[in-house]
Amino acid sequence: MNQKHSQPADIEKTSMAIIEAELQEKGIVLPEENAAVVKRVIHTTADFEYVENLYFSKGAVKMTAKALKENAVIVTDTNMAKAGISKVALQKLDGAVYCFMADDEVAAKAKETGSTRAAASMEKSAELYPAAVFAVGNAPTALLKLCELMENGLRPALVIGVPVGFVNVVDSKERLIEICEKYSVPVIVARGRKGGSNIAAAVCNALLYTAADMLDPVARGW
Amino acid sequence: MNQKHSQPADIEKTSMAIIEAELQEKGIVLPEENAAVVKRVIHTTADFEYVENLYFSKGAVKMTAKALKENAVIVTDTNMAKAGISKVALQKLDGAVYCFMADDEVAAKAKETGSTRAAASMEKSAELYPAAVFAVGNAPTALLKLCELMENGLRPALVIGVPVGFVNVVDSKERLIEICEKYSVPVIVARGRKGGSNIAAAVCNALLYTAADMLDPVARGW
Repeated sequence: MNQKHSQPADIEKTSMAIIEAELQEKGIVLPEENAAVVKRVIHTTADFEYVENLYFSKGAVKMTAKALKENAVIVTDTNMAKAGISKVALQKLDGAVYCFMADDEVAAKAKETGSTRAAASMEKSAELYPAAVFAVGNAPTALLKLCELMENGLRPALVIGVPVGFVNVVDSKERLIEICEKYSVPVIVARGRKGGSNIAAAVCNALLYTAADMLDPVARGW
Repeated sequence: MNQKHSQPADIEKTSMAIIEAELQEKGIVLPEENAAVVKRVIHTTADFEYVENLYFSKGAVKMTAKALKENAVIVTDTNMAKAGISKVALQKLDGAVYCFMADDEVAAKAKETGSTRAAASMEKSAELYPAAVFAVGNAPTALLKLCELMENGLRPALVIGVPVGFVNVVDSKERLIEICEKYSVPVIVARGRKGGSNIAAAVCNALLYTAADMLDPVARGW
């Protein structure tokens, strides 16, 4: 192994350069405003299909980065996505990430209402942090609950809808786009079956890095 | 959304049936001993490329499930993979999962030796849990450290080598296969660039479920 490539920061830089070169070879030009997010998702998956799959409402990245600069609160539908979000970037923005999937109150509420824990965790998140970024990488029921909450007035900074799977997943993501566009809520979706907690975390990290760069465009030493 | 599909357990069952049907449509017959792992990785990613990418040493799944039945200890190279491993399944096997990436001692050791935290965390894991399942979903340096430790006598129950990425990743996974085969250590690898912490967790979960089924083939109510 080449010594100059043995440190994580160098590896990331080189990886991004390879991704850029391969996009160019394929003749793909990413819209500048979304490029950081798309490239980070490719970096996380080595899957260039996300160039086609990722849907962004107009101005979503810029608006969310601005929002995160003021109030960097993210809620996720899995502890895995929470674990994947950069604590260094969150700290720079004085922010926080929450997941209520393992919360006893959420489990009780889900049982009581015959709902899923994912849906109940979104309800709790919306009560506590209505202006947060909601990042959903696993449960279609979480997305459908967010749609219902938006119909009733919830206006998050952004909804990231990237569940993965074979049942209810594609429909729930299309429904999310429809509802977010209806109420002008910024939205980022991985259309189709693909996605996952790793994608949710990657999108969040790209947004956090963009926000932190806005805050301090000189000190990029992280 | 169909009511009968709104609960996670039903969704998983239906998803697996869809995956099986699509594999059949594609004319793919999975080797029976590896099928549970391959299907769970597809379930986690909606990416059928893993049918081709996943490499298993002979008997790896069965041997590891037996080992986990006796000693269900897993170490990972990311907290994200750790978060994705089923705590319910671990509990059934009276097992545990560890990740030392955020460990202060590991950070100090990495700094002192000019190594990465991932490599240092593998050293610590190998000292504490030499017979564990080592699940690496992120860092090629962790895999290379494991290769070195195996050259010096380490004999884990299994090494899962599924880092994702563009730099050093492909080579480190091929090197892992070579070393594991040399010392008859069971190994599961996602060849090529693809992989990730989600894949590491999915492979572990498939193995844990298989082990728990061996332990109690009747009570599958989870």
